[in-house]
Amino acid sequence: MTEESNAKERVAIIGIGQTAFGEQWDRSIRRITLTAATACLADSGVSGDDIDGLYVSNTSTSSFIQQEHQAAMAADSGGLLPIASTEVEAACASGGVAVRHGYMAVKSGEHKVVMVVGCEKMSDISEAAIADTLMSAADREWEGQIGATFPALFALLACRYMHRYGTTEEQLAAPAVKAHANAVDNPYAQFRFKINTEAVLRSPMVADPLRVLNCAPISDGAAALILCRGDMVDKFEGDPIWIDASTQASDTLALHDRPHITRFRAVTSAAKKAYQKLNITPKDIDIAEIHDSFSISEIISVEDLGFVEKGKGGSAIAEGQFDKKSQLPVNVSGGLKAKGHPVGATGIAQIAELVEQLRGTAGKRQVKGVKRGLALNLGGTGSTAVVNILNRS
Amino acid sequence: MTEESNAKERVAIIGIGQTAFGEQWDRSIRRITLTAATACLADSGVSGDDIDGLYVSNTSTSSFIQQEHQAAMAADSGGLLPIASTEVEAACASGGVAVRHGYMAVKSGEHKVVMVVGCEKMSDISEAAIADTLMSAADREWEGQIGATFPALFALLACRYMHRYGTTEEQLAAPAVKAHANAVDNPYAQFRFKINTEAVLRSPMVADPLRVLNCAPISDGAAALILCRGDMVDKFEGDPIWIDASTQASDTLALHDRPHITRFRAVTSAAKKAYQKLNITPKDIDIAEIHDSFSISEIISVEDLGFVEKGKGGSAIAEGQFDKKSQLPVNVSGGLKAKGHPVGATGIAQIAELVEQLRGTAGKRQVKGVKRGLALNLGGTGSTAVVNILNRS
Repeated sequence: MTEESNAKERVAIIGIGQTAFGEQWDRSIRRITLTAATACLADSGVSGDDIDGLYVSNTSTSSFIQQEHQAAMAADSGGLLPIASTEVEAACASGGVAVRHGYMAVKSGEHKVVMVVGCEKMSDISEAAIADTLMSAADREWEGQIGATFPALFALLACRYMHRYGTTEEQLAAPAVKAHANAVDNPYAQFRFKINTEAVLRSPMVADPLRVLNCAPISDGAAALILCRGDMVDKFEGDPIWIDASTQASDTLALHDRPHITRFRAVTSAAKKAYQKLNITPKDIDIAEIHDSFSISEIISVEDLGFVEKGKGGSAIAEGQFDKKSQLPVNVSGGLKAKGHPVGATGIAQIAELVEQLRGTAGKRQVKGVKRGLALNLGGTGSTAVVNILNRS
Repeated sequence: MTEESNAKERVAIIGIGQTAFGEQWDRSIRRITLTAATACLADSGVSGDDIDGLYVSNTSTSSFIQQEHQAAMAADSGGLLPIASTEVEAACASGGVAVRHGYMAVKSGEHKVVMVVGCEKMSDISEAAIADTLMSAADREWEGQIGATFPALFALLACRYMHRYGTTEEQLAAPAVKAHANAVDNPYAQFRFKINTEAVLRSPMVADPLRVLNCAPISDGAAALILCRGDMVDKFEGDPIWIDASTQASDTLALHDRPHITRFRAVTSAAKKAYQKLNITPKDIDIAEIHDSFSISEIISVEDLGFVEKGKGGSAIAEGQFDKKSQLPVNVSGGLKAKGHPVGATGIAQIAELVEQLRGTAGKRQVKGVKRGLALNLGGTGSTAVVNILNRS
């Protein structure tokens, strides 16, 4: 195979754009989406005319403002008509799934340059409506009808995990403490201040053992990427970052149908496929962005990705094993906890952070010498997992 | 290029399955989906273990029963874990878009055998809730807020069209009369009886000039396909039917933003791309399934697909130019009008009908000697259009 045909079969990320995450009371969902998309075009030097496909990631706007068909809305308000535009929905994993579908659209030969944009606007929705809507991502019939909320489901999981592995409340606080420390240097982050373990343990209980500071916040925001066929990267500005693997897996919708609720089988399955494809091991990952919607999610995920032995996730994080200055920094962006979690944007923003790190343009957040990054985006209580592995060359 | 590598780059449909469309009060959405999926497995001789990707098309279950994350739900209830499972949403075009993404997933080399399943359960939802939810597919902010419903938007379009081209109410009735005549022979159809023009003109007015019998009904139902990489078809039973082109385009979300509301620009754009790819003209199509959610949709679509001159769609249909015994039969299945319109299933069922016709297994509905079929699936008021062109060889 020639080098040229090899490049044609690869997919590069050639542009990234984000809004700050947080409360954006004065902006509509159209405006937030456009802001990220425009930043992405500016970053890449790509014009709207170059883009031949659009992917939109959004989770709950159909419930929040009764607007479906957002693929057409984004194509329209972005001035990209008559572009092929598709919305994917996979609960909190929508962003990662959208990136994977942009990747496959390019790999299939049907598209050359694709924009992937994700957005969510949640601040102006009542908390009760948000809690109820988010439950649509779990099993409404078997979990929602008995009054479970998402924090309650993750609390069940955390209780069982802590009982089984002897993880302490202090260790459970560790992902949040790390996330806030990292977010200080991220201009896009919702909470740019440090917290300590005591602050987490003093914060109000949401669903025992999860306290407010164990949970990602409600956020508004958008993030966008431009993907491009490998042999076309020279047409555009900037350093391409390569998507080397993009894999996805599912688990049961309801927690009670799983043999072990302390494992994310979809994470293990998606990660295994990605590692096998690249013939690498977890040790070959230099940096990762991991879905920490609740502290317990990050603890279980670092285990199921193979970064640490089962049961040791909490202690490893508490001991600094995934800190910014460690061998494998996790959530240098601040993660969902401190960067924010506008659901449809989350999985795309994770990848935008990795692109900055691999380009070497992450400013104060920059981790030195990173070549390969992994993003894990989760949907529901781990019912969908998407793993994207990026490479600097 | 060798014949083998050529086959590898093609995508075949090797299985179809449907439920009857209509009122299914005693079945849940899980059950309806499973029924179609199981029929599809039986038809293809494929086992669940052979399938490595799942696409789910659904439009409004997030609103109707507050259940999102249906990709995971379908993978779970179908016993297909840990499969990669993705839901796409494009209003009434969701089914066609899901098929296109199954096609691209296989073409990309990331998947080999993919199931695409679409479903909707609408009978047990109040009519007011359905009307409101369907408006989510149009522009909520600019059209929904002034009280427009989907029939009202299509009525605006029909009024302007009839004024411009002199189409009569009798001609407007023709697509429905044809649809019902065809549905008599379709065991999956919701309305297996004929109607005449007078019955349409006597039926209650919904939104002038659209009467009840100009509108597709509320339906429950599901449909499924299995797609497979071209070089693997010999592993499975039955005659493969090939997807030769799958194209998609967008138009403005709101009607008032279009230069002409009597044209579906997204249809023209998607069709043109497909014809160009195959180097064919509309004359090369032998049979078509066209999105007739309202009679006016079919009239405008046969024009914008290039089957008849602009302005002549109504008279052509009334004169029998697209009847079952014509050169180019349209909606032999009974179309959305008489076969039924369970939104998420519609675009997939259109293709299942074409597969039956191209295989030569359509029983009493069989049109002789058809080799190439086209399916057009529309979303919103034409804001999304998907064209799939199938070939017998």
